[in-house]
Amino acid sequence: MQICRVVGTVVATRKHRTFEGAKLLLVQPLNIDDTPRGSALLTIDGVGAGVHEKVLVVLEGRAAGEALGRKPAPVDAAIIGIIDTVTIDD
Amino acid sequence: MQICRVVGTVVATRKHRTFEGAKLLLVQPLNIDDTPRGSALLTIDGVGAGVHEKVLVVLEGRAAGEALGRKPAPVDAAIIGIIDTVTIDD
Amino acid sequence: MQICRVVGTVVATRKHRTFEGAKLLLVQPLNIDDTPRGSALLTIDGVGAGVHEKVLVVLEGRAAGEALGRKPAPVDAAIIGIIDTVTIDD
Amino acid sequence: MQICRVVGTVVATRKHRTFEGAKLLLVQPLNIDDTPRGSALLTIDGVGAGVHEKVLVVLEGRAAGEALGRKPAPVDAAIIGIIDTVTIDD
Amino acid sequence: MQICRVVGTVVATRKHRTFEGAKLLLVQPLNIDDTPRGSALLTIDGVGAGVHEKVLVVLEGRAAGEALGRKPAPVDAAIIGIIDTVTIDD
Repeated sequence: MQICRVVGTVVATRKHRTFEGAKLLLVQPLNIDDTPRGSALLTIDGVGAGVHEKVLVVLEGRAAGEALGRKPAPVDAAIIGIIDTVTIDD
Repeated sequence: MQICRVVGTVVATRKHRTFEGAKLLLVQPLNIDDTPRGSALLTIDGVGAGVHEKVLVVLEGRAAGEALGRKPAPVDAAIIGIIDTVTIDD
Repeated sequence: MQICRVVGTVVATRKHRTFEGAKLLLVQPLNIDDTPRGSALLTIDGVGAGVHEKVLVVLEGRAAGEALGRKPAPVDAAIIGIIDTVTIDD
Repeated sequence: MQICRVVGTVVATRKHRTFEGAKLLLVQPLNIDDTPRGSALLTIDGVGAGVHEKVLVVLEGRAAGEALGRKPAPVDAAIIGIIDTVTIDD
Repeated sequence: MQICRVVGTVVATRKHRTFEGAKLLLVQPLNIDDTPRGSALLTIDGVGAGVHEKVLVVLEGRAAGEALGRKPAPVDAAIIGIIDTVTIDD
């Protein structure tokens, strides 16, 4: 799973029927020190996350579908948790 | 999921029987600022997208197969939505 | 899916029993302008492709297994079409 | 599978119900010579690993779900072993 | 699938019960000209490969599990063949 920050929203009125009503959030993957890493990606929100929140993102279709409680949904990324704290033990 | 722009079409007359009739579109992944990111890739169109449209692409076999409504199709990428707006909250 | 060119063949006499008889082809992923992109990879041929042909390659285990008509085969890449034309609309 | 070192822990109180109680560990992928490789990632602990231990990490949803003994859990990475020794034969 | 060379072995006494007894081999992905490419990775041996042998590696959980004949095993990479010859047709 990846640590990401929610950075935006996406509206797609014409979309595959199995995820009508799902919330599309744009997230930016983060390094451990909270700097951005790579490109932003689109996820389906499975926990009610908001913009600026640090979240736990699962990147895999089967797992993302499970997160939505709709196994056959055509998704490959989902927000599955809101992160409270990250503790690094060097 | 990735934000991409449809940039072309591909014709393959000899192909696996399970996706006879499917439309093959070439899409270019985009950064948040709409600049191209990485290489173009081939997708199956699940929503009736057209060239130049900004689309939502799912990159995973199970999910892509679901998008086509033909679960056992041998695909790994599908267009599952047409993007209306992307809103970035910095 | 990826656009690739078939560049070679691989012989492996000792292999997993579920793909005895399958043809192993080495393919080179291509950019839109037909220049090579990244490293060559090994695929199972699902459509009777030949060396030098431009092909459609699916990169995912479930999908690749479907292409062979042997769902439980341990494969992660398969050739699923022969490409006739690629049209870019800038 | 990847060789990683456990480098931290993550707390996420609001998360998908299927992995309530699961332990989230931050791991750093390693090269053969134990130098860090790429970015740290979040895994679910399937074997009772501790911080600083060198572990075996599986990166794939179905496999990670199996490691937890909860197939439908929305996870894409899990710790499945504690590494004792790595022997390189040049 | 990837062409790799077996470069070492890994011992992990504490591991997920479903792959007790499985042999863990460290493999180095190769370019077509046999030079190393990227980082070494851990695989489960499905064909009885030995150190220094050039092997065929499948990188995907479902496929890797099939290679072991234990579908639900939490693995994401397996050796599924020993390579005899690679022929490049330029």
